[in-house]
Amino acid sequence: MPFVNIKLTGGKEAPTAEQKAELIKGATELLVRVLNKNPATTVVIIEEVDTDNWGVGGQSITERRKMG
Amino acid sequence: MPFVNIKLTGGKEAPTAEQKAELIKGATELLVRVLNKNPATTVVIIEEVDTDNWGVGGQSITERRKMG
Amino acid sequence: MPFVNIKLTGGKEAPTAEQKAELIKGATELLVRVLNKNPATTVVIIEEVDTDNWGVGGQSITERRKMG
Amino acid sequence: MPFVNIKLTGGKEAPTAEQKAELIKGATELLVRVLNKNPATTVVIIEEVDTDNWGVGGQSITERRKMG
Amino acid sequence: MPFVNIKLTGGKEAPTAEQKAELIKGATELLVRVLNKNPATTVVIIEEVDTDNWGVGGQSITERRKMG
Amino acid sequence: MPFVNIKLTGGKEAPTAEQKAELIKGATELLVRVLNKNPATTVVIIEEVDTDNWGVGGQSITERRKMG
Repeated sequence: MPFVNIKLTGGKEAPTAEQKAELIKGATELLVRVLNKNPATTVVIIEEVDTDNWGVGGQSITERRKMG
Repeated sequence: MPFVNIKLTGGKEAPTAEQKAELIKGATELLVRVLNKNPATTVVIIEEVDTDNWGVGGQSITERRKMG
Repeated sequence: MPFVNIKLTGGKEAPTAEQKAELIKGATELLVRVLNKNPATTVVIIEEVDTDNWGVGGQSITERRKMG
Repeated sequence: MPFVNIKLTGGKEAPTAEQKAELIKGATELLVRVLNKNPATTVVIIEEVDTDNWGVGGQSITERRKMG
Repeated sequence: MPFVNIKLTGGKEAPTAEQKAELIKGATELLVRVLNKNPATTVVIIEEVDTDNWGVGGQSITERRKMG
Repeated sequence: MPFVNIKLTGGKEAPTAEQKAELIKGATELLVRVLNKNPATTVVIIEEVDTDNWGVGGQSITERRKMG
């Protein structure tokens, strides 16, 4: 009955619906393979975060991408 | 001083403003009734997730809805 | 298929198993009543947070409780 | 390697890109100053929540703002 | 720079350190394979939740396990 | 009315109560300074994560620390 939450950058960098489907499938299979969890009750939620709203090293991703 | 986070499917399935108000009221009353928490400091946040971004059983809700 | 995450203070203030069961039941019923969600796929997770680790007004709950 | 998640009201109340950059910088500096964490691996994510979706005292922020 | 949060039941059902290492490795590889993300900045956090604190179908996992 | 959630490594690396108090104070002041938020309703929650349960670069922090 695990719950997986994946946060990643959205906007221009957002995954396609096909890529999201692969993430959902892959994360579910991982829980089944490693812990023998029931896939029917394994939930995966993908959250897309704007690059202005994601920071690392004290700077937003937007700023980092500009600097190359 | 509890904090309640409700994640549910959005887009066409999103709750109306009235339904969201009922969720906020109901979750707050639940914490007051069961644990005698102070409603003034009980916070409820509702997050709407696209059906492409929510998976269960290894498939997105979008795919599951198509299959009926 | 909603997901509810309740964070509240733990330690000496932690709810009993019976109170947790009431929170789980109540939150699930709320989603069923307001949005007609399927209870079988409604997940509720309760997280207990130490009063040292929870702050409001710039102070931890531990400090606030000391001040009365 | 800390992870900071800031949830705040969005929409008309959303911070500007400059304010978000300040939050990212400030939260990172806080972790460096207090815990000597490595800024290069300190992640900050800002989530903007609609005022209909944020409740306190049993009411949404939208309703509270109307009442003044 | 994705962030993956896996919540699963702990206590007697908690994964071993080896299983946790496999989850971390597998989730990171998934993000690399599907989205070409940089593994060096892919963060995975596993949270173990007591079976009293996890509910589904309106009942805690503890209660459900008792009923078989 | 912002909500700040800080996740960091616990166990031997856990911050002291004094350091947690500084994080709570500093995060609250940041929201007041940058966005003029009301400190009385600014909530900060610190979550301590075992180094076995935190991964980056496909490895747990426990493994990374062993390798130096």
